[in-house]
Amino acid sequence: MPRYEFRMQRLHVEDGLSAGAEIALDRAQSNYLLNVLRMKGGDEVLLFNGRDGEWRAALRQEGRKQASLVASEMTRPQAPLPDLHYLFAPLKHARLDYMVQKAVEMGAGALRPVVTRYTQSGRVNLERMRSNAVEACEQCGVLAVPAIDEPVALEALLAGWQASEGARILVFCDEGEASQNPLAALDDLSQGVPLAVLVGPEGGFSEEERALLRAQPFVVPMPLGPRVLRADTAAVAALAVVQARLGDWH
Amino acid sequence: MPRYEFRMQRLHVEDGLSAGAEIALDRAQSNYLLNVLRMKGGDEVLLFNGRDGEWRAALRQEGRKQASLVASEMTRPQAPLPDLHYLFAPLKHARLDYMVQKAVEMGAGALRPVVTRYTQSGRVNLERMRSNAVEACEQCGVLAVPAIDEPVALEALLAGWQASEGARILVFCDEGEASQNPLAALDDLSQGVPLAVLVGPEGGFSEEERALLRAQPFVVPMPLGPRVLRADTAAVAALAVVQARLGDWH
Repeated sequence: MPRYEFRMQRLHVEDGLSAGAEIALDRAQSNYLLNVLRMKGGDEVLLFNGRDGEWRAALRQEGRKQASLVASEMTRPQAPLPDLHYLFAPLKHARLDYMVQKAVEMGAGALRPVVTRYTQSGRVNLERMRSNAVEACEQCGVLAVPAIDEPVALEALLAGWQASEGARILVFCDEGEASQNPLAALDDLSQGVPLAVLVGPEGGFSEEERALLRAQPFVVPMPLGPRVLRADTAAVAALAVVQARLGDWH
Repeated sequence: MPRYEFRMQRLHVEDGLSAGAEIALDRAQSNYLLNVLRMKGGDEVLLFNGRDGEWRAALRQEGRKQASLVASEMTRPQAPLPDLHYLFAPLKHARLDYMVQKAVEMGAGALRPVVTRYTQSGRVNLERMRSNAVEACEQCGVLAVPAIDEPVALEALLAGWQASEGARILVFCDEGEASQNPLAALDDLSQGVPLAVLVGPEGGFSEEERALLRAQPFVVPMPLGPRVLRADTAAVAALAVVQARLGDWH
């Protein structure tokens, strides 16, 4: 449910943005603006690059098939990346696309694939993940494009956690947890602690993986109610509860 | 992330279920079990009809293209419908399918389309909604198939609310709410109050609709953080927060 100010077309660009900056568009981008969106010279869009905030820019038409954009004024300052990492077992194709988009909408600042025993998709297309993340930023008014990490095996992730992550807490969505209340699981965590949320594959975690996770001092198991959730549903549900209780929804 | 006991094929049927009950399958169902799932005589599935609980049943093969199922023992008693209604502006096609499935996973006991000013899809295919709801029940181990209501206009819904809904509270996901914290919005509600959650269309509510909603004594506005959420994301996020704070996740 976009707010109305977001109805203006928003585009992610790689170039630096400042007053008067001219952003060259390639053939495909020009075609998209001129022929798909049917924009004309002087029509405005919003631009962001993940570094320089959001800028209003006007289309400059240079023939039927070529255009550029000229930035005029900043509409929003750059937002920092939310300090909330989303860790997940990669799903196949469309479901992964969807999960990545949802995690960005929900305010994940980093997307980190984790390979577990029952992970169905070993190969992860990081370029595709990035373009899904950028698309979600464009559609949902997000200015900070999340970092996208290389996949890592669960055991290696846990073994190196404290050395690389410091005090970051790993909230582990545990379908085997006896309680059903996710809020109670977060009760002992204080506002402002760096967080990560881990959602497993469609097949769940193995018993060995669950035991390993629960043995780590930086892991907090969190149940997600009495019903079975698909992994992409669990992503949104877990991030909603964590954001509402401890994150930037609070 | 299905738990392992849910890896058995689960099928929704219309017939009554009891020990020894034989469920006739039509051509399409027989073909699905025999040729798509490649099941053989004696192989077992789980059956539910939304009334009689979940039953283990064995396939009885009656030729290459015809089969029936014979129920043996109840595996779970019938669960009541959760007393949480999900009201939503219908979306188009695939996004509506997705939203219906997600609402079922999240424990909605009734799915109620509401037509608002910016609703993009006036016609609602209730049969398609029902088959999506059934599919979500099959996949996610839900035994109570949600009721699916006819679409109603927002103004009519609100005008008749107290007469037809009694004490039910309508939690209205309000993107224009100044605060960002959904949990704080629910602070004054007590556990056990009958609830409904309303999510608007992709275009949001009009200012008139927002004012009308906020003027009702049975409406509680709930923000969903600082970012714009797509309607199907808002569905899962809102239901997660409500379930965690007041519903059957608590």
